[in-house]
Amino acid sequence: MSAFAPENDLLLRALSAKPVPRTPVWVMRQAGRYLPEYRKLRAEAGSFMSLATNPELACEVTLQPLRRFKLDAAILFSDILTIPDAMGLGLYFEEGEGPRFRQPLASERDIRQLPLPDPERELSYVTDAVRLIRQRLDNRLPLIGFSGSPWTLATYMLEGGSSRTFAKSKKLLLESASVAHHLLGKLADAVTDYLNAQIAAGAQAVQIFDTWGGALPYAQYREFSLAYMQRIVDGLNRSDAGTHVPVILFSKGCSIHYAAMAETGCDAIGVDWTCSLAQARDLTGDRVALQGNLDPATLLAGPEAIRAAVQQTLASYGDGHGHVFNLGHGITPDVPPEHLGVLIDAVRDFSPGYKTENPA
Amino acid sequence: MSAFAPENDLLLRALSAKPVPRTPVWVMRQAGRYLPEYRKLRAEAGSFMSLATNPELACEVTLQPLRRFKLDAAILFSDILTIPDAMGLGLYFEEGEGPRFRQPLASERDIRQLPLPDPERELSYVTDAVRLIRQRLDNRLPLIGFSGSPWTLATYMLEGGSSRTFAKSKKLLLESASVAHHLLGKLADAVTDYLNAQIAAGAQAVQIFDTWGGALPYAQYREFSLAYMQRIVDGLNRSDAGTHVPVILFSKGCSIHYAAMAETGCDAIGVDWTCSLAQARDLTGDRVALQGNLDPATLLAGPEAIRAAVQQTLASYGDGHGHVFNLGHGITPDVPPEHLGVLIDAVRDFSPGYKTENPA
Repeated sequence: MSAFAPENDLLLRALSAKPVPRTPVWVMRQAGRYLPEYRKLRAEAGSFMSLATNPELACEVTLQPLRRFKLDAAILFSDILTIPDAMGLGLYFEEGEGPRFRQPLASERDIRQLPLPDPERELSYVTDAVRLIRQRLDNRLPLIGFSGSPWTLATYMLEGGSSRTFAKSKKLLLESASVAHHLLGKLADAVTDYLNAQIAAGAQAVQIFDTWGGALPYAQYREFSLAYMQRIVDGLNRSDAGTHVPVILFSKGCSIHYAAMAETGCDAIGVDWTCSLAQARDLTGDRVALQGNLDPATLLAGPEAIRAAVQQTLASYGDGHGHVFNLGHGITPDVPPEHLGVLIDAVRDFSPGYKTENPA
Repeated sequence: MSAFAPENDLLLRALSAKPVPRTPVWVMRQAGRYLPEYRKLRAEAGSFMSLATNPELACEVTLQPLRRFKLDAAILFSDILTIPDAMGLGLYFEEGEGPRFRQPLASERDIRQLPLPDPERELSYVTDAVRLIRQRLDNRLPLIGFSGSPWTLATYMLEGGSSRTFAKSKKLLLESASVAHHLLGKLADAVTDYLNAQIAAGAQAVQIFDTWGGALPYAQYREFSLAYMQRIVDGLNRSDAGTHVPVILFSKGCSIHYAAMAETGCDAIGVDWTCSLAQARDLTGDRVALQGNLDPATLLAGPEAIRAAVQQTLASYGDGHGHVFNLGHGITPDVPPEHLGVLIDAVRDFSPGYKTENPA
């Protein structure tokens, strides 16, 4: 099944900068807490993890936003931290606190002993969900798979949860660089296996979320985050029965590195709202497609402001085909769902005006 | 008194990119919680504000790090939010929660009615502290004054405290741009008056802290933050009895805007750790001096790692005189004070090697 291009292939075409009649649109965390139907299902399931680890429920949550909105892609409902959980760290979610691990990495021994998970065994709930979603999507829309980046996974594994200062992770990079490289190398291998398993199960594009890349000093970002995303890009099976599977790199707060990110061989860069798309095109020399980049806070404003901001975003990218409309980060739980509808309609209404250029 | 250049004028020379034999160094929040003598005084005073509003105590706290370390500048002990407090919003500090306001701005009426404070009346505790510190410094070291930027002040005034999403502030920009411009214009006038009063009282350089500039979308940063810092730069009395008073702009997470910041007429840009100094020199074409940019987390590592990171930072700036060594943001409370000593010694030891260039 995964060999067939979906009926709506705008996302896959735009990620390869092939001609599209309008800009495709999806939003990060489109299956999530801003939707009442999600909150209901989550309350019934009892916890985030009981949703994420049940393929039937994960599939249902993935499909929820597609019933409301004219989105151009589905994204697997899961978490960026499934790999460390499969490595035995014990992922759980503390209400209002975000993700936490029961057994964070506390020593070099912990790091050296980390097992490499077999995705079809320890993470079969994910690949099963991918297969189920592809079946239910029935080739109407493409499905995006994803993982956290090695550096971002490492921060949670070392800090035990979210952090403002990344004190333990940064101390490891500074004082025990070789141990840090061992950990990041193992995580890069695990992410590669995991994304390849998602692709084999039917994911038609994959995104690597480097949520905390922007916390690193300039040189350390290159050495400890980008280098390991490069290794993943190099190791992905990006051809699924002759169809190209695009990979999107999203490093938040890293516009200064866009030129280097474009050189990894990725297909697209996820752009946050602090960089204009015009600037990002300039920095990447149009070698990759761009995904983004509306400030999620825009969706808290009214329809008029949302439409104006969508127009500005489209105008900033300008004429061309390598743009996937998205937010610059995930949609927040306080957004009224109808505001996302306004955004999607605005992208559909205004974007054809920017497709006049005729690429070779 | 303020007319005389201090005996140690390395900071003032470097901020004008005039020849210096070594790189001057100070660190943001050098007078603060990582120092046991500060914590003792703060406990005795009862609260942050009772320290900050008492010129004798503010002076004492300002001088504390100078007794321990061979720093090249003093920075006024105060808070970035004194102006909104003087406007009647009622600043206080919740333990572990950061700054809060008792009366945040809740309506357009609140914004239009905000009074413009007279610094020598409502903020005389600050100018008195400046005069006292200058007297006690006895012209050994230069004294830096500071304020929050209009946008950064506005976020706290609208949100009522710290924020992760800046929902209220961003909604105002999107839905009521003219009201936002009114607020930011008033704040720019207030900051200009306030910094001019600090300069008149004896501040020999001033820094504008735009802590939350990096939360804004690209175009909004230019319109709602940078434009108002420009207005302040234009309005400052930067010549004190013939001596130039340099102004430093620090917008955290804004490296994408450094070229534009350099065009404001400021003397220096504060660089955070996510951009290399080499890259920042490139972006600004050496039109301004650069201050920064060691990751504050470096000071949690041991002496060897600190020395290596200092060397890398100096090497990244390279040969030249327009560098003031600093952290990329404030020193954190968990830093062992002796680690700052290691940093300062390393800057003194290694930086003369980068002063071989002979500027015109």
